[in-house]
Amino acid sequence: MSQRPKVVVTRQLIDEAQKLLEADTDLDIVQWTSDQPCDRTWLLEHAKGASGILLMLSDTCDEELISTSGDQLKVIASFSVGTDHVDREALRKRKIRLGYTPTCLTDAVADLTVMLILMAQRRAGEAMGKVIQGQWPQMPWSPLLMTGPQIGGSTVGFLGFGRIGQATLKRLLPFGISRVLYLTSKPGQPVKEDHFGIIKDASIPIEPAKDWEQLASESDVVIVGCALTPDTKHLVGTEFFSNMKKFAVLVNIARGPVVDTDALITALDKEQIFGAGLDVIENEPNIQADHPILRQPRCVLVPHIGSATIATRVQMATETVQNLLAGLKGEAMVNEVEL
Amino acid sequence: MSQRPKVVVTRQLIDEAQKLLEADTDLDIVQWTSDQPCDRTWLLEHAKGASGILLMLSDTCDEELISTSGDQLKVIASFSVGTDHVDREALRKRKIRLGYTPTCLTDAVADLTVMLILMAQRRAGEAMGKVIQGQWPQMPWSPLLMTGPQIGGSTVGFLGFGRIGQATLKRLLPFGISRVLYLTSKPGQPVKEDHFGIIKDASIPIEPAKDWEQLASESDVVIVGCALTPDTKHLVGTEFFSNMKKFAVLVNIARGPVVDTDALITALDKEQIFGAGLDVIENEPNIQADHPILRQPRCVLVPHIGSATIATRVQMATETVQNLLAGLKGEAMVNEVEL
Repeated sequence: MSQRPKVVVTRQLIDEAQKLLEADTDLDIVQWTSDQPCDRTWLLEHAKGASGILLMLSDTCDEELISTSGDQLKVIASFSVGTDHVDREALRKRKIRLGYTPTCLTDAVADLTVMLILMAQRRAGEAMGKVIQGQWPQMPWSPLLMTGPQIGGSTVGFLGFGRIGQATLKRLLPFGISRVLYLTSKPGQPVKEDHFGIIKDASIPIEPAKDWEQLASESDVVIVGCALTPDTKHLVGTEFFSNMKKFAVLVNIARGPVVDTDALITALDKEQIFGAGLDVIENEPNIQADHPILRQPRCVLVPHIGSATIATRVQMATETVQNLLAGLKGEAMVNEVEL
Repeated sequence: MSQRPKVVVTRQLIDEAQKLLEADTDLDIVQWTSDQPCDRTWLLEHAKGASGILLMLSDTCDEELISTSGDQLKVIASFSVGTDHVDREALRKRKIRLGYTPTCLTDAVADLTVMLILMAQRRAGEAMGKVIQGQWPQMPWSPLLMTGPQIGGSTVGFLGFGRIGQATLKRLLPFGISRVLYLTSKPGQPVKEDHFGIIKDASIPIEPAKDWEQLASESDVVIVGCALTPDTKHLVGTEFFSNMKKFAVLVNIARGPVVDTDALITALDKEQIFGAGLDVIENEPNIQADHPILRQPRCVLVPHIGSATIATRVQMATETVQNLLAGLKGEAMVNEVEL
């Protein structure tokens, strides 16, 4: 048997990260190489004697996996932003370290947010649908044909105003937006962190909303970018929509259940709002072809691709390997969960 | 019979512009009010004795219309950016003035350009298609699932670098692009006009390309924003695509025939480029449902909606009425064609 520390890796990694892992010749690497999620039985069998485990969001890290691994286990490195799949308490009591990758997807998600705002305002889904169905030749030109609201001059309302929200704002400024409102868990209070140095010296008003009613009623664009908590579940529901402007659009890049899907469908049917752009939705990914949201021409829905850029995923994989190696060597991780 | 000057208007105008027109009580206004394009016979009949005609892109202004109107005709005000539908020579020899609206759509088109870049990079059409077809539940997560190139770090190449191109660049800067190349009718020479004051003090290199080969081979994003001329027709064709990067995207917001559609389809089939976003295409609007471009999952096509925002169309309509009134009174127009 090898005397080198054993690490179990539940997926083939992107090239750059795989090379970084393999460059450490002191490791005995055991790796699941299929494109399918790692088999639980395989994982439990191979975890025995492991010093480190690099795993995905789809792999549950619980008491069973940890105790099966054995006392030599030093580190779990998760390729994920969230760590809901990990039993933190089980790690804490054994002093096993936990690495994750929360920061590297800000740019990719902010980019997608801008895309969804513009798609909702400019009726991109509806417009593409008409072309695909062969209707373009029968669309006689008229001054208001396929028009939507323009982002210039808009008041933009952020539900949640952390790193991703502020990175989105940075991108929106040169589009000529005229005002920003934001709502955090402390309504009416200015945010403490100005992540990109744009709030302090902004040339437009950037103000905390006093409550969600103000944000809903005064915004032309509402961006849902807050965490999902008992307080935010269905925060954007029937009452919220009835406060929104007729030409306003809603974008959700956070978590599906912050928006009440039934209420959104009703708001679109009743033309209480102009359109919506969603990267997330309640009950995803179980959205069947007959889901009523898919019959809304003014709603764009993409399958949770906020962080889906090659650069971001390479960065996530690389940081996960760095966290794994740091955990084995007792060094500082790129991002470590405080247990 | 009325002694007030008669004006013929070939469409019901957007509210604000209609009010501006009707506010001039000195006019005898004759207006086509159907949603369909103005009937030619109706136009010829009512143009008799008109001092001014406000018309759309779909109305031909030729020798017949002008001579039928009579010698009192002073002004044609066209609700359009282009004036190909107007016989300029027929106007010039009678000293009839021609107004048009070339400048007010810059922001709307620049907004749409950013949308199309992001949609092409982030595979928006393909992603929406999978959701609509009910495939989301069967998309097992993997690190590179639905990933595309990220705009941060991109070199952006502009074919044509006028007002719309520069307005697009202004929006792209905070996305973290790293370099700009542009090609005008004078390759290798710096542009004279810095419309928004962003070129002079830019924090990234903004350079004229020496030829299209350099622009094609070094850009991660290529934006077609040039006029259609004999020199630019099919400029983006087989050779251009074979020079492009495998992960580059092409966006066309100018005129369809600058891009050779067959060559684009081949480039997408052969994966010579990553994707495309088109607001215009050869032979538009006659794009039937079986057009081969519509079978390309990595190509997004919208039906020439570049200027289709409510604010822009209101502005266009208002400026057209202002041009009409200025022409009648011998005052300065917002934008007048030099005949």
